[in-house]
Amino acid sequence: MIHVADRIQTDMDRTGSIACVGLDPRPDLLPPSLRHQMLERHGDTNEGVAAAFVEFNRRIIDAIAGRCAAVKPQAACYEAYGAPGWDALAETVRIAQEAGLVVVVDAKRGDMGSTSAHYRQAFFGGAPGLGEGPAPAPMRADWLTVNPYLGWDNVGEFLDPAPGRHGVFVLAKTSNASSGEVQDRLCLDDDHADRRETVADAVARLIRGWGADRLGDAGLSDVGAVVGATYPDEARRLRLLMPDTLFLVPGYGAQGATAADAVAGRRSDGRGVLVSSSRGVIGAWQRAADPEDWGAAARQALDIMNDDLAAARA
Amino acid sequence: MIHVADRIQTDMDRTGSIACVGLDPRPDLLPPSLRHQMLERHGDTNEGVAAAFVEFNRRIIDAIAGRCAAVKPQAACYEAYGAPGWDALAETVRIAQEAGLVVVVDAKRGDMGSTSAHYRQAFFGGAPGLGEGPAPAPMRADWLTVNPYLGWDNVGEFLDPAPGRHGVFVLAKTSNASSGEVQDRLCLDDDHADRRETVADAVARLIRGWGADRLGDAGLSDVGAVVGATYPDEARRLRLLMPDTLFLVPGYGAQGATAADAVAGRRSDGRGVLVSSSRGVIGAWQRAADPEDWGAAARQALDIMNDDLAAARA
Repeated sequence: MIHVADRIQTDMDRTGSIACVGLDPRPDLLPPSLRHQMLERHGDTNEGVAAAFVEFNRRIIDAIAGRCAAVKPQAACYEAYGAPGWDALAETVRIAQEAGLVVVVDAKRGDMGSTSAHYRQAFFGGAPGLGEGPAPAPMRADWLTVNPYLGWDNVGEFLDPAPGRHGVFVLAKTSNASSGEVQDRLCLDDDHADRRETVADAVARLIRGWGADRLGDAGLSDVGAVVGATYPDEARRLRLLMPDTLFLVPGYGAQGATAADAVAGRRSDGRGVLVSSSRGVIGAWQRAADPEDWGAAARQALDIMNDDLAAARA
Repeated sequence: MIHVADRIQTDMDRTGSIACVGLDPRPDLLPPSLRHQMLERHGDTNEGVAAAFVEFNRRIIDAIAGRCAAVKPQAACYEAYGAPGWDALAETVRIAQEAGLVVVVDAKRGDMGSTSAHYRQAFFGGAPGLGEGPAPAPMRADWLTVNPYLGWDNVGEFLDPAPGRHGVFVLAKTSNASSGEVQDRLCLDDDHADRRETVADAVARLIRGWGADRLGDAGLSDVGAVVGATYPDEARRLRLLMPDTLFLVPGYGAQGATAADAVAGRRSDGRGVLVSSSRGVIGAWQRAADPEDWGAAARQALDIMNDDLAAARA
C-alpha cells in the first residue's frame, strides 16, 4: 500500500503540477449542447442532471489526467439532485480513479463517534450489510474534507487504523469572507499563558497532533488541512504550526487569490500545498472559441494554472 | 404559512411532548425477522439495507405519530449506503411528514456561499434543472442541522428569505466527549475586554444575531442551536446568550444525560428545548417481550421518555 500523502507527492513530481481540479458541475456550467441533449433524453429530471454531470466530468477527466495532482468533486453539487446525484458523484470518483487520478471528495463532514463512522463508510466503504459481510462501498475516495468543530470524536473516526490508507483534510482556515467570525477569534494559548492565538491556530495544533504518527515517506501526514489561498499571511503562520501537514488550498482564481497567495503556505522545500481551482478550469469552455470541446478548454486553462503556480514557487 | 418554530411549539402543546425521535437505523438495530426478510428479497445489497430502513422507520413512525414533537433522521446512517440510502432518507422524510410529523434532518452540513446553497437545495429543494424551471426537490425537510465553523457565508445560505419557511439548528455545544477541544476554548470577548468566553459562547452570540429578525409568534427563531444534554451547566449559560433560540438537545438516554440535564437549557416559561433520543426509542424492541413489534416497543419507550421529561420540567 502506498501512503496517500506519498501518492500525491509522487503525482506532483511526475506531472510537475500541484493543481487539484474541482469537479463542481452545475447546470449553468454545462455547455448548451450537452444540456439540450440530456434534456431531450431524460426530460427535466434529476436523472438528466446526473447524466449530464457524468458526461461533462468524463470529458474533463480524459483531458486533464496526467496534468494535475488530484481532482476534487464537491459533494454538495451532486447532493442537490438526490440519489441520482449521489450516483453521479460515485461514478465520477470511479472514472477519475480509472484515469489514474487521486480523488479528494469535498464534503466537509463532521459528526460524533459512530455517526462519523457512517460518514466514513459513505466515502471510504465498510458499512455493515444485512448479512455477515460489509455492504458494497458506495465509493472509495482517497481523501475527504472534514470539519473540526466536534474535535477528535469526529476526526478520529474518519481515519483508517492503517496510516495512509486514505486521508482527511481538516478545515483550519477556510477561504470565504466570513471565515474569521469563528476561525479568527482570539483565544488564550493553553501552553503559553502570555500568548494569544486564533481558533484556526488552535485547530492547527490539534491537526498536527492528530496526524503526528501518520506520516508517509515524503514526511507528510494523512491528516491534512484546508488553508484558504485568500489568507496568505495566515497560511504562512499555519505552516509553522503544521510543518508535516499537506495543505489543500482553495480560493485560487475565481475567489481572487493569486498564485503567490496560493503557495504562501508551502514548506521550505517547496512541498506541501495542493492548490484547487474549479470554475477557472471546468468553466473555461465559456471563454473558448469552441464551447463544444470543453475538455480541451479545461486542459488549456489547467496548463496556464500550472505555469502560474510553477512561476510562483520558483 | 406557519413559522417552523411555531409549528414545533404547537406540536409540543398538542402532544404534551418535547421529544424528538432520532430515526438512525443501522443493520444491527433491525429486528432479525426484518433483516432476514430483506436479505432474502434483495440479497446483501445497499438496496436491501435501504428497503429495510424504510420499512423499519415506517412502523416506528406509525407508532409514534402524535406522541412526539418531531423526528430526526441522521443523514450519515443513510448516506453509508450510497444512492439507495439517500432514497431511503427522502422516503423517510416523506412518510414522517405524511404522518403529520415535523422533520429535522441531522446532516451537520457546512460549506461556503454557493456551495452551501447546493446543500440547501439537497434538503429543502430549489436546485436549478436542465431547462428553465427548478429540478424536483430530493426532499423538503422542515429543519436541518448546520455547522458554524465557516460563519455567516455558510449559515446564511441555508435560510429562506421568508423567515420560518424552514429552519436550521446551528451546532453550538455538542454532546460528545471531545466537543470541548474546540468549543470550550477560552476566547477574548470582543465586546468586553475584561471578560473571557468559550468558542461555544461566541458561536451562541452569532446564532442570536443571525436569528434575531426571524422570530415566529411563539417568540422563537428559525435559527436554532444544538446544545448537548451532557453539558447542563453550559446549556444554562447558553440560554442566557440565546433567549429566543430553540435548542435541539441530543445526548439524553444512551449518551448518559438525565431528563433534568436535558431540560437544563429551557426558558423560564419552560419552553425552547427539543430533546432527541434515538437508540433509546427505536432500539427498544431489543428489550421487549416481542421484538417483532418494534413499533409498539418504540411507542412504549417514548411514553416513558415523555413522562421523564415532563417530570423534570415540572
